[in-house]
Amino acid sequence: MSNFQYFGGLEGGATHSKFVLYRSDGQVVARSEGEGTNQWLIGLDECCRRIHRMLLAAKETAKLDGGVQLKAVGLSMSGADEKESQEKLIKHIKDYYKEDYEEVFVASDTMGALFTATPDGGIVLIAGTGSNCQLINPDNTMRRCGGWGHLIGDEGSAYWITQLALKRLFDHDDSLNISNHNVECVRKIMHEYFQIKQNSGMLQYLYSNFEKSKIAGMCKHIAKGAEDGDDLCIDVFAEAGKVLAKHIIAVEPSIQQSLLTGKGGLHVVTVGSVWKSWKFLKPGFVEVMKRDRTDRRIHEVTLLALKQPASVGAASLGARAAKTSLPMDYDVNAEVFFHEKF
Amino acid sequence: MSNFQYFGGLEGGATHSKFVLYRSDGQVVARSEGEGTNQWLIGLDECCRRIHRMLLAAKETAKLDGGVQLKAVGLSMSGADEKESQEKLIKHIKDYYKEDYEEVFVASDTMGALFTATPDGGIVLIAGTGSNCQLINPDNTMRRCGGWGHLIGDEGSAYWITQLALKRLFDHDDSLNISNHNVECVRKIMHEYFQIKQNSGMLQYLYSNFEKSKIAGMCKHIAKGAEDGDDLCIDVFAEAGKVLAKHIIAVEPSIQQSLLTGKGGLHVVTVGSVWKSWKFLKPGFVEVMKRDRTDRRIHEVTLLALKQPASVGAASLGARAAKTSLPMDYDVNAEVFFHEKF
Repeated sequence: MSNFQYFGGLEGGATHSKFVLYRSDGQVVARSEGEGTNQWLIGLDECCRRIHRMLLAAKETAKLDGGVQLKAVGLSMSGADEKESQEKLIKHIKDYYKEDYEEVFVASDTMGALFTATPDGGIVLIAGTGSNCQLINPDNTMRRCGGWGHLIGDEGSAYWITQLALKRLFDHDDSLNISNHNVECVRKIMHEYFQIKQNSGMLQYLYSNFEKSKIAGMCKHIAKGAEDGDDLCIDVFAEAGKVLAKHIIAVEPSIQQSLLTGKGGLHVVTVGSVWKSWKFLKPGFVEVMKRDRTDRRIHEVTLLALKQPASVGAASLGARAAKTSLPMDYDVNAEVFFHEKF
Repeated sequence: MSNFQYFGGLEGGATHSKFVLYRSDGQVVARSEGEGTNQWLIGLDECCRRIHRMLLAAKETAKLDGGVQLKAVGLSMSGADEKESQEKLIKHIKDYYKEDYEEVFVASDTMGALFTATPDGGIVLIAGTGSNCQLINPDNTMRRCGGWGHLIGDEGSAYWITQLALKRLFDHDDSLNISNHNVECVRKIMHEYFQIKQNSGMLQYLYSNFEKSKIAGMCKHIAKGAEDGDDLCIDVFAEAGKVLAKHIIAVEPSIQQSLLTGKGGLHVVTVGSVWKSWKFLKPGFVEVMKRDRTDRRIHEVTLLALKQPASVGAASLGARAAKTSLPMDYDVNAEVFFHEKF
């Protein structure tokens, strides 16, 4: 019989979830995966059932008896931003799955990502299909910027970058705003990606057959255009870099001092595929971060990309909630891809 | 037995249509109404059947024998922008309803609006739920700007004005862009119109329950806010005025000289409810029209609002196609609400 305790961590997405099982010495003993666990999409019952199934699968992999109770579980979940939905989920698990865990901790999906990369808090800046910025302070106070969807937000996201490139093309063709850059590369990308021959072919994708992810999917081809040296493609990524930096500056007044003065300065954990094109985001990002502004507090920034799923940070948060800690090697969990003092 | 000839005109919308029956002396002898006649929504057969029924209803009102053949009909229709769909419709009517009309003329819905207000051509500038700008020259050459829908176009429309006001509010609350104007009036309008208590309540209207017309519907309350003197409401209308003027300037190089130098200068026929707030659009509109620009050609503008349905202009176009003309009193059909030299 061992003296080890066990800890679980969940990255709960809208369509897919990842579970990790830790031993108290910091060893990952199993990983499992499952369907989406957003309680608003599938209901609380099914959500908890799915988590339970992932736990059982992980125990089986780890050759751990199904009856072993975990010291704690941390659930970092899509659809769990509000305190009320977090409390509901905890109550449901304690009512129906109390044998599974001594302690249950629930947080938003950004929390798991952040604490996978750092133990101290910082900023999570998402730029995937959509975008969102979340500051989480060491004292757990938070501040959000963005995340309002493609109609009035999502700046710097793959959707936004595509929309901006299309807008530049259409406005140029209409003579509404003449583009400073040649629009033919973007036109070619649009024609090929949407399989259309002229601008009017886009109307169906902008109306009846609108899918946010379909529009956003063109962004990786714009990134390819930037790689090939096209000025307009390069420019829309630089614009995205600017507006992503503006999200950080928007939450600047709320950042606790210790996050700004520690080693590496402010840590920003980046999530989403747009960050793969960092070299094209960088000029705009740096330009905005360096701009003079009143009450400027950020003078050093470290950008990190995760190498491990957010379930790792979730497990760490679960352990904390149980008044203990899991040994974590943050250099393994995330890598620094940008560090600069301004 | 009279020596009069008869002419028909149709304003064919997507959900509703209006028919007018003229006598060759310029007298309106009947009007009738019917369902939508967009061929892409209901098919060519049903479209022609509905037009035929409106014709019969008008003949009955006019106490005209059902067998009397009209000299011509002009159809100004939603969904008839392309030459190909115009020709299809003409062929279908000539194949199946040839006893109804000697001559059939089909044009886009903007054409009927324009020729209701003026015999010479000009610009139709739509700012309703969406927006669109169409130049129609005396030689029938055309140039369009906008009309690409709410995701990459519709500038200056009711949808766009609402979106801009919401964006100003959300960006201010997020500290992403601090508003120069107090945002509380727009917040109150949003809370009341959407029956929500906080910003997150908008997410459903921006995602799952998105309806363009619902968003656009908030615009009239913003107009009320402008009436009450709120600076942010006033400002978003001024921005709309600017971008509507930019649509005119976008087509400027294609305008035939005679449209610029005639009495009243360039005639712009305005369509859509946003124009009801002209006094708030005006500052931005005038500012942009007066701006220095290379190769400026527009030095005088007359803005008109229709007092008659576009079926009137359609009938006039039908008569032209039959190489004749209908006497029209353009002062009765439309009124000038702005005239200025720049």
